[in-house]
Amino acid sequence: MGLKRARIAVDAMGGDFAPDEIVAGAIRASAELDVDVLLVGDPEAIQTSIDKHGGVGTAQLEIIPAEGVVSMEEEPLTAIRRKPQASINVAMNLVKQEQAQAVVSAGHSGAAMAAALLRLGRLKGIDRPAIGAVFPTMIPGKSVIVLDVGANVDSRPKYLEQFALMGTIYSKYVLGIDQPKVGLLNIGEESSKGNELAIKTHQLLQENQQIPFAGNAEGRDVLKGEFDVIVCDGFVGNILLKFAEAVGEVMLQIMREELPKGWRGKLGTALLKPNLLNIKQRIDHAEHGGALLFGVAGVCIISHGSSQAPSIFNAIRLAKEAIDNEVLERIKAYNEKRLEQHQHSTEKASAS
Amino acid sequence: MGLKRARIAVDAMGGDFAPDEIVAGAIRASAELDVDVLLVGDPEAIQTSIDKHGGVGTAQLEIIPAEGVVSMEEEPLTAIRRKPQASINVAMNLVKQEQAQAVVSAGHSGAAMAAALLRLGRLKGIDRPAIGAVFPTMIPGKSVIVLDVGANVDSRPKYLEQFALMGTIYSKYVLGIDQPKVGLLNIGEESSKGNELAIKTHQLLQENQQIPFAGNAEGRDVLKGEFDVIVCDGFVGNILLKFAEAVGEVMLQIMREELPKGWRGKLGTALLKPNLLNIKQRIDHAEHGGALLFGVAGVCIISHGSSQAPSIFNAIRLAKEAIDNEVLERIKAYNEKRLEQHQHSTEKASAS
Repeated sequence: MGLKRARIAVDAMGGDFAPDEIVAGAIRASAELDVDVLLVGDPEAIQTSIDKHGGVGTAQLEIIPAEGVVSMEEEPLTAIRRKPQASINVAMNLVKQEQAQAVVSAGHSGAAMAAALLRLGRLKGIDRPAIGAVFPTMIPGKSVIVLDVGANVDSRPKYLEQFALMGTIYSKYVLGIDQPKVGLLNIGEESSKGNELAIKTHQLLQENQQIPFAGNAEGRDVLKGEFDVIVCDGFVGNILLKFAEAVGEVMLQIMREELPKGWRGKLGTALLKPNLLNIKQRIDHAEHGGALLFGVAGVCIISHGSSQAPSIFNAIRLAKEAIDNEVLERIKAYNEKRLEQHQHSTEKASAS
Repeated sequence: MGLKRARIAVDAMGGDFAPDEIVAGAIRASAELDVDVLLVGDPEAIQTSIDKHGGVGTAQLEIIPAEGVVSMEEEPLTAIRRKPQASINVAMNLVKQEQAQAVVSAGHSGAAMAAALLRLGRLKGIDRPAIGAVFPTMIPGKSVIVLDVGANVDSRPKYLEQFALMGTIYSKYVLGIDQPKVGLLNIGEESSKGNELAIKTHQLLQENQQIPFAGNAEGRDVLKGEFDVIVCDGFVGNILLKFAEAVGEVMLQIMREELPKGWRGKLGTALLKPNLLNIKQRIDHAEHGGALLFGVAGVCIISHGSSQAPSIFNAIRLAKEAIDNEVLERIKAYNEKRLEQHQHSTEKASAS
């Protein structure tokens, strides 16, 4: 599968700036990346957006008709069931029918998750899907993947163990980290620290030979770049993700307010323009494109609702990287092996 | 009590820079604030530090001898019991014996909490103490108090309800917010969102007439300045606090790396020096002095282990503000009234 040209279904109707910015990002991706993009949604609206953006370089673009969209106000599962022709459902069906290998959506993230679960289903051996978000770290060029950032609340230790495995595979094969370090988000370094979930998960991670567990990661360690994968319950992860996204904006805002004060400030700021742009890039979450939905039978990228063309472009690149590096197949293979071993040891135990 | 001159016991031996920086902060506080400071610890070491800092303006300084200190490696409760003469224990005893009204410590925070619980005990009507940390917000001069940031894990809804009440009193009488807005840290705005704890707490907060509950606060809302008090379980709060502290440092580091690049960068950075200092001040957690331990029978300020003189000075100011504004007495009065009402309604119910 890694040798086939990646085909990626993009929900053209989801997100605050749909379809215009979504289409713009898709056009750029189909021109610059080695991918086929399937734009799913209202054909007229999509065509208008394509024309607006010059309609050039669109040889690798295909329009797949869909009717309606799940809005942010709707209860996701109900809406997904009531609107089988909504863009996110049609996009997931394309993966189900093997006409695409991945879905990118900036629409209702709960709806994307519900559609993925309903249309594609979970991978064998995975109890719960997890949303993984890539955070930048202090070390330039180095990222850390945090999962789960919102698919589950009140997780069990074995879910976090599965998240750790999926994160490890992603870190190894997509981010190219030979020996990824897996951390458990916690309030102290010692194994005895934390809530019930953390204490029990610590033990599971320590016992699992497949997980390169490096111990607890505190809040201050997330951005240090010492860990490659950090696992947590989706409640904590979601709060952390939204805080982190906002904090970048707050910092940029404080800089915008304070730097140009006074004539020295104005002159200094003008001189520093390119450097400030570098800072913005290192902080800005838009650079990261989106979060990955792990554990479902397809590659799904959940982009921010406020995504504009650059984010969508990056999200499509993320999807392509996951496809090219066979993340799904590797998770599947790992789980099948694990289930076999488990069965084998159970048979052995009952035979003896 | 608010009219008496505040007497504050400072654990001179706790923290990475004890006793030198602790003593330096205490000297400044006793000179600039209207407080008496009791320096608790090894008399010789404290005297050496006082002499080093000129020994001037120390009229309001008193040395209270103590033996030993609880180190960061020790299990707090065991150490507190095994070392009755340790500085943190002696400091708490001063409050117990009404020789001081507050304790400030930059030592082992778990030990400070254990000593407070053991020596001072909980306030009537409070099931669990909570650590409250003051976060800066995007709005200059406006803060938000987040509690709990680490005293408890696996909290129950009624604990969070009590945290909300204590935070409200603090916000009203110390921060001077007439109508504080209380938020519940959660992963969405709707009352149905969140984990079991959040859903149940939401209901309690909504029903409690004494709490000016303004709904759920997401991770992105913490720094916006729309909420005055945010309550959460100590596991989430601690991770958030440590992340927030680190993120400030990361931002400053990124600025230090990127700004002086190139000759324009060097010139611009030189011109911007005062503006950059303002940014540092708005971001830096040291400006906030420390966290408050709510719910024990005494004012306790838990400062960062890395605290230097300015943080200790601010921590002493925090303690003074809590004393002058009778935070403890107000929480007590509120709880007594509530317990009376509860008893009254129980009697009424059993009579009818």
